[in-house]
Amino acid sequence: MKLSKLFTKTKREVSKDEESINAQLLGKGGFINKEMAGVYSYLPLGLKVYKKIENIIREEMNLIDGQEVFMPTLQPKENWLKTNRWNIMDDLYKVSDKSDREFALGPTHEEIVTPLVKKFVNSYKDLPVYIYQFQNKFRMELRAKSGLLRTREFMMKDLYSFHTDDKDLDEYYEKAKEAYLKIFKRLELEAYFTYASGGTFSKYSHEFQVVTEAGEDEISICKKCKVAINKEIINEHKVCPECGNKDLVVKKSIEVGNIFKLKDKYSKPFDLTFKDKDGKDQVVIMGCYGFGPARALGTLVEVHHDENGIIWPESVAPFKVHLITIGGATSDGEKIYKDLVKNGIEVLFDDREVVSAGQKFSDADLIGCPIRLVVSEKTLEKDSVEYKERNKKEAKLIKISEITKFVK
Amino acid sequence: MKLSKLFTKTKREVSKDEESINAQLLGKGGFINKEMAGVYSYLPLGLKVYKKIENIIREEMNLIDGQEVFMPTLQPKENWLKTNRWNIMDDLYKVSDKSDREFALGPTHEEIVTPLVKKFVNSYKDLPVYIYQFQNKFRMELRAKSGLLRTREFMMKDLYSFHTDDKDLDEYYEKAKEAYLKIFKRLELEAYFTYASGGTFSKYSHEFQVVTEAGEDEISICKKCKVAINKEIINEHKVCPECGNKDLVVKKSIEVGNIFKLKDKYSKPFDLTFKDKDGKDQVVIMGCYGFGPARALGTLVEVHHDENGIIWPESVAPFKVHLITIGGATSDGEKIYKDLVKNGIEVLFDDREVVSAGQKFSDADLIGCPIRLVVSEKTLEKDSVEYKERNKKEAKLIKISEITKFVK
Repeated sequence: MKLSKLFTKTKREVSKDEESINAQLLGKGGFINKEMAGVYSYLPLGLKVYKKIENIIREEMNLIDGQEVFMPTLQPKENWLKTNRWNIMDDLYKVSDKSDREFALGPTHEEIVTPLVKKFVNSYKDLPVYIYQFQNKFRMELRAKSGLLRTREFMMKDLYSFHTDDKDLDEYYEKAKEAYLKIFKRLELEAYFTYASGGTFSKYSHEFQVVTEAGEDEISICKKCKVAINKEIINEHKVCPECGNKDLVVKKSIEVGNIFKLKDKYSKPFDLTFKDKDGKDQVVIMGCYGFGPARALGTLVEVHHDENGIIWPESVAPFKVHLITIGGATSDGEKIYKDLVKNGIEVLFDDREVVSAGQKFSDADLIGCPIRLVVSEKTLEKDSVEYKERNKKEAKLIKISEITKFVK
Repeated sequence: MKLSKLFTKTKREVSKDEESINAQLLGKGGFINKEMAGVYSYLPLGLKVYKKIENIIREEMNLIDGQEVFMPTLQPKENWLKTNRWNIMDDLYKVSDKSDREFALGPTHEEIVTPLVKKFVNSYKDLPVYIYQFQNKFRMELRAKSGLLRTREFMMKDLYSFHTDDKDLDEYYEKAKEAYLKIFKRLELEAYFTYASGGTFSKYSHEFQVVTEAGEDEISICKKCKVAINKEIINEHKVCPECGNKDLVVKKSIEVGNIFKLKDKYSKPFDLTFKDKDGKDQVVIMGCYGFGPARALGTLVEVHHDENGIIWPESVAPFKVHLITIGGATSDGEKIYKDLVKNGIEVLFDDREVVSAGQKFSDADLIGCPIRLVVSEKTLEKDSVEYKERNKKEAKLIKISEITKFVK
């Protein structure tokens, strides 16, 4: 992509009420645009990063046999009355049509997926089933804040699992946990598997918390087990639930994913049953597995940045290479650009002619692609370009003929 | 994908109030699930087809320099007041939060994209700009009907173009028209470029209408020019607007896309201007370009089916090959399945053991993949499989060693 064609521009400033680092840097870099409190547009650079995150999650969900669907935002009130959440869920957006029929704007999809699965599951032979989607969801947050960390409209991956019994759920729950840890590894986010309140249906639920000062949560980390406990249950559990260790470290953190054993909480109200081997009706056992790819995007910026801008991990960078031409080097830059693209490398090419070298460098730092290449008359004298990695200080000259080898 | 793992099943019947062919066949095949009137979930098979349609559109939008973004569903009331559509748009869903602030659920995004572009466009050098997205949109349809053809929540591709003057808009409008015709060709839908009412801002808008009895529109087709006129303006235009031909053929049709010269209809209320070469402020000229991928999906079924089921064009088929094993041939089927997948061919493998051959054949016809392969003890005696194309009557035996050659 040529920067001269990109419709967004970097900005020196964004609104001061955007206090969080992710809102500041993503706004300045032209990744997102704030439409109102808690509601953002994803601009070309931001959407590119978002889609890479989404794809990593999708690959891991497919590996644990998830089947992707797309369920609607508009959800019938009747379904929400059945689970009693129409009245008790405080942050549910409600909308009505001309005939005053009411709908919920989906903040989650148990009320849709449970009756959906009921249409296809009859026997134990039809189980287990794993269904997931990526969807924009809605929550009437009183205080939308911290950029992408707490919004009213947000992207969510939600997977729902359906089982014959608790044991099958427990096994899948472990698999999902491992898949989540793989996702965080690929995103280069260090996430703690965190014990949290389980509600009335199981002892614990589990969150995946990433340590950052921008987070609203507080967790107590057991350095030995690499697990944590959410503050909300810390009074009951002043020791590591896995090893009994009392030496816990308290940190602020942000919840990027959570997994939950729902058991029969939703299958019961929707009468989702199956015939077991003896032909007897049994209630289906459920689990749910949420992951916030947009929140992950914001968290990535909170964790990976310096005073000059974002430092994207390669797995989610909008482009691998940020190529800059200085002075009269545009046509040589163009050649290098085409060559890299032909070799399947994603390049953001700053081909702007009227922009100063200084501005180009600071834009590259702000946007944060992993590798910066600079072509100038000076580097061309040595048949070279300047090569610098975003997270390192030193730059070096490399031969033009060797660029592909270096950036691959 | 193995059919034994797919959580959906084909159904003999779907609700009789689903009168349209697309709702019937997509419902029976397990492509979609109706959640309420005008609101559907996309199940794994349906989402696969939807994504192929989306990708074809995306490729063509990128080729005409579209830059993809993702704008929100929740839209501030103030923006809609500015264009006066808050009060006059009859089918706008409105939602309010706890403090009684009101929002629109986006049925279209002029009210978001125009102020967004204003943040980045200052000079004539920043133009033209082309921005598009895929988004679930909302329209309070009084009579949701005809399956995916008229829904309350629907997927939409909307592109917006921004220009310095009418001439630039006109040129891009032609390019977009050609891109649309290419999309329809790739989807194997015969679409007529149709003259329709232009509102107050231009003489005509243009629709892309596909002939089908399920359509709600009526167009008069000029066979010579391959263009059409929408019934809504036929009284003014009883002849072909391109050649003057009076011999027009009237057909029922469905509007799958439309393009519109907005001129300054939205740029004016949002004061979207640019400095021209003389440093004078000028109003930006806009166009918009809608395409309904979900409606295209429904239309495809209306156009491509027979009494036994859907006949997907290869470009959007959920799988290219539907592989069936009969009797004791499962392990040979498995080998063929793996071999095809290794060769990059998408295969739906009906490996179900307890299902009759007849049921497997009728499921294959209903689901409608382009090529059906049958492995049975009888075909294996001749080292062969039975090969049949969905849109042809004859089946033939082909050697197992030659399968890849045949299906590639």
